[in-house]
Amino acid sequence: MTNIANKKLTLAKRPVGDPQPDNWALETETIDGLAEGEVLVQTALLSIDPAMRGWMNESKSYIRPVKIGEVMRALAGGKVIESRNPRFTAGDYVTGAWGVQEYAKGTGDEWQKVDTKMAPLETYVGTLGLTGMTAYFGLLDVGKPQAGETVLISGAAGATGSMVGQIAKVKGCRVVGIAGGAEKCRYVVEELGFDACVDYKEGRLHAEIKKHCPEGIDIFFDNVGGEILNIALAHLRLKARVIICGAISQYNNTTAPEGPANYLSLLVNRARMEGFVVLDYASRYAEAGAEMAQWMMQGKIKGKNHIVSGTVEDFPETLMMLFRGENFGKLMLKLD
Amino acid sequence: MTNIANKKLTLAKRPVGDPQPDNWALETETIDGLAEGEVLVQTALLSIDPAMRGWMNESKSYIRPVKIGEVMRALAGGKVIESRNPRFTAGDYVTGAWGVQEYAKGTGDEWQKVDTKMAPLETYVGTLGLTGMTAYFGLLDVGKPQAGETVLISGAAGATGSMVGQIAKVKGCRVVGIAGGAEKCRYVVEELGFDACVDYKEGRLHAEIKKHCPEGIDIFFDNVGGEILNIALAHLRLKARVIICGAISQYNNTTAPEGPANYLSLLVNRARMEGFVVLDYASRYAEAGAEMAQWMMQGKIKGKNHIVSGTVEDFPETLMMLFRGENFGKLMLKLD
Repeated sequence: MTNIANKKLTLAKRPVGDPQPDNWALETETIDGLAEGEVLVQTALLSIDPAMRGWMNESKSYIRPVKIGEVMRALAGGKVIESRNPRFTAGDYVTGAWGVQEYAKGTGDEWQKVDTKMAPLETYVGTLGLTGMTAYFGLLDVGKPQAGETVLISGAAGATGSMVGQIAKVKGCRVVGIAGGAEKCRYVVEELGFDACVDYKEGRLHAEIKKHCPEGIDIFFDNVGGEILNIALAHLRLKARVIICGAISQYNNTTAPEGPANYLSLLVNRARMEGFVVLDYASRYAEAGAEMAQWMMQGKIKGKNHIVSGTVEDFPETLMMLFRGENFGKLMLKLD
Repeated sequence: MTNIANKKLTLAKRPVGDPQPDNWALETETIDGLAEGEVLVQTALLSIDPAMRGWMNESKSYIRPVKIGEVMRALAGGKVIESRNPRFTAGDYVTGAWGVQEYAKGTGDEWQKVDTKMAPLETYVGTLGLTGMTAYFGLLDVGKPQAGETVLISGAAGATGSMVGQIAKVKGCRVVGIAGGAEKCRYVVEELGFDACVDYKEGRLHAEIKKHCPEGIDIFFDNVGGEILNIALAHLRLKARVIICGAISQYNNTTAPEGPANYLSLLVNRARMEGFVVLDYASRYAEAGAEMAQWMMQGKIKGKNHIVSGTVEDFPETLMMLFRGENFGKLMLKLD
């Protein structure tokens, strides 16, 4: 092979509050050949996820932080352009967590081959990727929804929330979303089939939740945290389950997150609030992916992707779209 | 029977913050005879519980509020002085929730006869009463402790906390308490057999929890709330259970309770925080009481009672002892 110049985005310093341009460094390295067993992939899509903000912090979390000087972690999809590994052939499409770079070289042990004749690459990165797995296991394993129950979902127009709601509908639940703005709310109800959606930007969350969940909430799937979590807690039914998936409203705080003052609703309602990490379910991804794919083919669930075209240099600005609520569906950066 | 003048304490108005003298009214009524099926009991002991503060509020909770003008709800123990009910005979000892009054007349449907030859009346009101049931079901049913796990308990020298810790020891756990002051800490370790106790008044909760729970907390049994809950959350282990039994630090707040800012530890550690209400376990009190009595007779658990002597007029001041942390063990008011 000829030498390849690989542009990659590394973490230059840890952010305080919103990530800034100087948190990143653009580096170019030369990839000059594959060892036996290695494979070279060209990145086509980068998944842009709220969890990335946490990976930039120094503190211990459910996964080790990205180190200073290291390529920013990201789930990605791409095409094999050269292989010295019998598992892969040039032209194969693969997904894996090789990060924000144009090319990746490795043994591919943790990369998955995907069939782009069955579904486009973005479906494997999004709906059938970690986003879909997060929705599937969070709702079904942690929340254990029963037909007829009321499920409230924050970040309802987002990648995970939109999947959670559709899966809850498959399970026979009444589904109410919370999203920002009339367009997102319309989409969630009219296109995804939620029963109702509350626009938090109208500032009447209490009244609107009460209106759409008059008997209270059996399951609250929270992607947002802050005041939305706090208000939702005030509407729990007996034996409710609050699933802590994320807290995008809090990730860029420079002070401690806002704690949910209404947590004693857990006592009064004999309810539980529980966190989960999708990586724990890796051994069951195949099973879940098969079921999700079937629901997709039956038209029961659909993914909406928000694909931004650009280069690895556009990653920082694309990431910020998440925190400004500018994405509409699963956000990805497509490398030109 | 001759007419009996019954002094009773009623709720005159709802408190804002700490209960004040004008929240209460002392009334005297005449009890002038029993109808067929009724029984008259003379109160000997009143159980003084943190939950009482919640019962004084207007808002819906797990049990209906005490109404204005109604006798203050309290668990009590006393002696039957006259009976026209075949289930009871004068001289029987009974427990029931007849409230803060010197005498109670009723059908006794929800009162229990107790055998004071087996244990003194205060044991039935405390250790084998709702206090013991709260500790038993909260720890065992909600927390599901496993031998070798680390259990942290706030309010460790209090009525519930001291029982929780002893039951956790029976189950083979490592048990660490949090209490206020050196004397309570000494008692919890030396007399109740906790492995360690942290004095929160020393202001080094983070460091002390880290020292005594170096691998983190599997179960946190919280009676206190506020900053103690928040700090405990920062020390959870994977799959930890946080049992919300109460929040005595917050009950007299005039503003919203302090929310636990560290709640995202639930996500990172795949942990859950769950509330419960002991009244839900009524059908299993007998089973639990039998097991607790056996542990008592085997010397594995012991109750410490803090008995104040007085009249129903002393109830308001005795209640305040709880919120000032002045009780040491299960607080009761013994009527002279």
